[in-house]
Amino acid sequence: MVWDAWGIPAGHKPLSASIRNLLTQVFGVSGDPVARRDEGDVPLRESTLTPTQWDGLVAVVGVGSISVDHHDRLLHAGGKSTPDLLRRRAADPQDAPDAVVFPADHEQVLAVLGYCADNAIAVVPFGGGTSVVGGVDPVRGRFDTVIALDLRRLDGISEIDPVSGTATLGAGLTGPKAEELLAAHGLSLGHFPQSFEFASIGGFAATRSSGQASAGYGRFDDMVQRLEIATPSGTIELGRAPASAAGPDLRELFVGSEGALGVITGVTLRVHPAPETIGYQAWSFPDFETGAAALRSVVQAGAAPTVLRLSDEVETGVNLARSADIGGEAVAGCLAITTFEGTEAHVAARSAEAGALLAAAGGNALGQTPAEEWEHGRFAAPYMRDALLDLGVLCETLETATTWSNLTELKAKVTAALTDSLAEQGTPPLVMCHISHTYPTGASLYFTVIAKQLDDPIAQWHIAKRAVGDAIVAAGGTITHHHAVGTDHRPWIPGEIGDLGVRVLRAVKRELDPAGILNPGKLIP
Amino acid sequence: MVWDAWGIPAGHKPLSASIRNLLTQVFGVSGDPVARRDEGDVPLRESTLTPTQWDGLVAVVGVGSISVDHHDRLLHAGGKSTPDLLRRRAADPQDAPDAVVFPADHEQVLAVLGYCADNAIAVVPFGGGTSVVGGVDPVRGRFDTVIALDLRRLDGISEIDPVSGTATLGAGLTGPKAEELLAAHGLSLGHFPQSFEFASIGGFAATRSSGQASAGYGRFDDMVQRLEIATPSGTIELGRAPASAAGPDLRELFVGSEGALGVITGVTLRVHPAPETIGYQAWSFPDFETGAAALRSVVQAGAAPTVLRLSDEVETGVNLARSADIGGEAVAGCLAITTFEGTEAHVAARSAEAGALLAAAGGNALGQTPAEEWEHGRFAAPYMRDALLDLGVLCETLETATTWSNLTELKAKVTAALTDSLAEQGTPPLVMCHISHTYPTGASLYFTVIAKQLDDPIAQWHIAKRAVGDAIVAAGGTITHHHAVGTDHRPWIPGEIGDLGVRVLRAVKRELDPAGILNPGKLIP
Repeated sequence: MVWDAWGIPAGHKPLSASIRNLLTQVFGVSGDPVARRDEGDVPLRESTLTPTQWDGLVAVVGVGSISVDHHDRLLHAGGKSTPDLLRRRAADPQDAPDAVVFPADHEQVLAVLGYCADNAIAVVPFGGGTSVVGGVDPVRGRFDTVIALDLRRLDGISEIDPVSGTATLGAGLTGPKAEELLAAHGLSLGHFPQSFEFASIGGFAATRSSGQASAGYGRFDDMVQRLEIATPSGTIELGRAPASAAGPDLRELFVGSEGALGVITGVTLRVHPAPETIGYQAWSFPDFETGAAALRSVVQAGAAPTVLRLSDEVETGVNLARSADIGGEAVAGCLAITTFEGTEAHVAARSAEAGALLAAAGGNALGQTPAEEWEHGRFAAPYMRDALLDLGVLCETLETATTWSNLTELKAKVTAALTDSLAEQGTPPLVMCHISHTYPTGASLYFTVIAKQLDDPIAQWHIAKRAVGDAIVAAGGTITHHHAVGTDHRPWIPGEIGDLGVRVLRAVKRELDPAGILNPGKLIP
Repeated sequence: MVWDAWGIPAGHKPLSASIRNLLTQVFGVSGDPVARRDEGDVPLRESTLTPTQWDGLVAVVGVGSISVDHHDRLLHAGGKSTPDLLRRRAADPQDAPDAVVFPADHEQVLAVLGYCADNAIAVVPFGGGTSVVGGVDPVRGRFDTVIALDLRRLDGISEIDPVSGTATLGAGLTGPKAEELLAAHGLSLGHFPQSFEFASIGGFAATRSSGQASAGYGRFDDMVQRLEIATPSGTIELGRAPASAAGPDLRELFVGSEGALGVITGVTLRVHPAPETIGYQAWSFPDFETGAAALRSVVQAGAAPTVLRLSDEVETGVNLARSADIGGEAVAGCLAITTFEGTEAHVAARSAEAGALLAAAGGNALGQTPAEEWEHGRFAAPYMRDALLDLGVLCETLETATTWSNLTELKAKVTAALTDSLAEQGTPPLVMCHISHTYPTGASLYFTVIAKQLDDPIAQWHIAKRAVGDAIVAAGGTITHHHAVGTDHRPWIPGEIGDLGVRVLRAVKRELDPAGILNPGKLIP
């Protein structure tokens, strides 16, 4: 992962002429991209780690597994939200963790937490570093020192059970590496969020991640069978069966705990045989409401495809729905994508049933190609954001979810909040939306917003983000469907779970992390 | 519900001649049933409720909504486990709540909890009273006084959203009443545990209930969208969307909280249109392992029926698999039941796919009749237990769950623990088992055990139950798949969630119930 943008250098491509034309027409933006800085030129706040602390941590993880190098600190200086990336571009000294520690296993994680609790060092658990909500920002809270606890060395598969369809994966495995190890056993996890290429198994669990195949394979929380967690108060292992009535399901306290209650070190997940076949089918609908009702009919009938998505008119128009490239051949109305994975018999039965329902609900079958194109380009959008930011265009995404009956109103309210808050600043935006996760009772809404940057784009976005957060809570949506809370959504947690819910989280944190070292400033207000 | 047995008087029928023959042959039991006592003849421990406490509670719920009558106290003296029922038959004075309080709504529940917390009165939340794990026993803990908080008056539907497929139900609604109210809107919940006829919505949530149609409609915890909960520390409302990444899912702390963390007063549930059609198909398999592998192939292919069950050889042999009656026409090997609900297209597609997989895995199709017979008799088994108990036969059930790969071994270990612990007491048992809940990664195991009663059948069963609990933990199963913890499974909670998990539950309880009045002696060790 590069330090000041998404992904790897090879992923960054210049914008096409058609996108540049569109940006010029809509936002009056033109000219050359801002030059990126060399990472060595970036001033970092000096590390506060003392020699005693260094020795203490070296005693736990060994001398080669702790770093105060400029490069390592910069690579752990935060996540990949647009504000994060804009801060990297700023001339001011960057905040960064005072050290980066690379434990080898669960026992070392436990020992690092013990040392840090005893020595007043804040700990930011760090997986792939792809948080877009400030979840891995080096917030030190009331502590002088903060370390990033990088879990990349926890990268093994400790157990595979092909009969039960489970695998126990180390928290530090990235999505592609996990799939590669599973593929050697003919298995697949099927969790493909947009962060897939860089994010980690532990991060997926800690943030309640949801992948693009969630209609077929479930959200990551659905996949979690068992968790191993290190806390300053000791180890906790949860999940003894596929389902249980043995009291509250404490796994659900740690799935989504964002490193504030403990560090997830190992996850036993439901996996499945690599699909025999994959069917692709794209659809167009005359408008978003018709398309949403069609998706609803499929999910409520129990006939959900593996992937089920619907772009609204704007997103379909600029062709973001089909690939990461704005421009290409346009589809009229709203584009929907379906894919079907499994055995030949399952794919045939399911695609026939779902296809009939989509057609009956007003869908026009477009064939395989748009669906295949979508799959081909599905991890590319974050790269385009970097190119836009470089050109002086603000680009950010956000998401929510609600019931089917409230979906249209929530979409309108969020769109209005984004449009009004940015237009009032003189930068009217382009707002696009899609449904990417569906449930029998409702769906998610994922928004992409593009506007001309102001001189202080972080402040500009902050105003819009505040307006949207308030609008979501007022309109009955959840403050985040799959991006998690971090620092950015924390103000709205009382709106989500109430003051008593916040007290419950604090009570759990006091028990597991009495010194309060775990990821301060995140999740819990 | 009658005071000393399951269900309603009309449900109780004499055992058939064939069952009596079987009991005589296997257990040497014969003769006439023990006569039941008139409830007025049962000595109850005197109520400790003081006039001041009476006045205080009357001030909250009104004079007609609190009772210290013999009848009301006896009807709230516990649940319906075999030890519960055997205790009712004993000559000793029965323990009972010191009063029964019938709040009208959430606000009254909140006020009762406030009064009881201030006045050191233990509170046992009481729904349908069908607990088989001691969950509603009148345990007073360190308090002099305990009340049963009967939620039957919270029996409304406050919101129906047919588009989203959700309904908000009062905690006190019984299964049949909830289905009746939903049917008026063309909807159904589809939650049919064996306790369906008497148990309540709040109880289903508080105990993580799982119904016979769980393969199609999910467990009750899967259905829960939103909860309203009264605690001594105030009200908490949870669940703002079908899915969320806004931190830990606190709903999962209260689903399964068994009245120890709060009182669930309202539940918003996922419902579905009443099915257009229902398909029935029974199967036989040569043995349990072949049948289990067949069920696994169906669930892992994503082709699960609505109901999917498999009885083992013994259960199939005594025909418990088909109805509540032991005896009738036998099926060779192991009987499996499938039903398919939904639209005509869905039922056709799903039953074709599942049927092909079951046949390929060695199943022999038996047609509709055995499946229809199973459905017809599916709520009758608890009545037969009463008839057996009356004849001096011990009869109890217990259940667990594990991964597919561990299923055969867990079944053998539990069977051995039951057989050995009862045979060592001179009462070798008949042990039957079925799979009634399936998941991609594993399944539940439900055991019915029958043996000749000793003079102290409670002590006799206690020895067997202890052996089974230890065997389940040692063999890697969960201590309960859908019966919950109550008093009876509490000793094994540390084996399920570890000491640190117990500390987490205690921390949450301290925050929500600082006086410790809520259901003492249950769930949390």
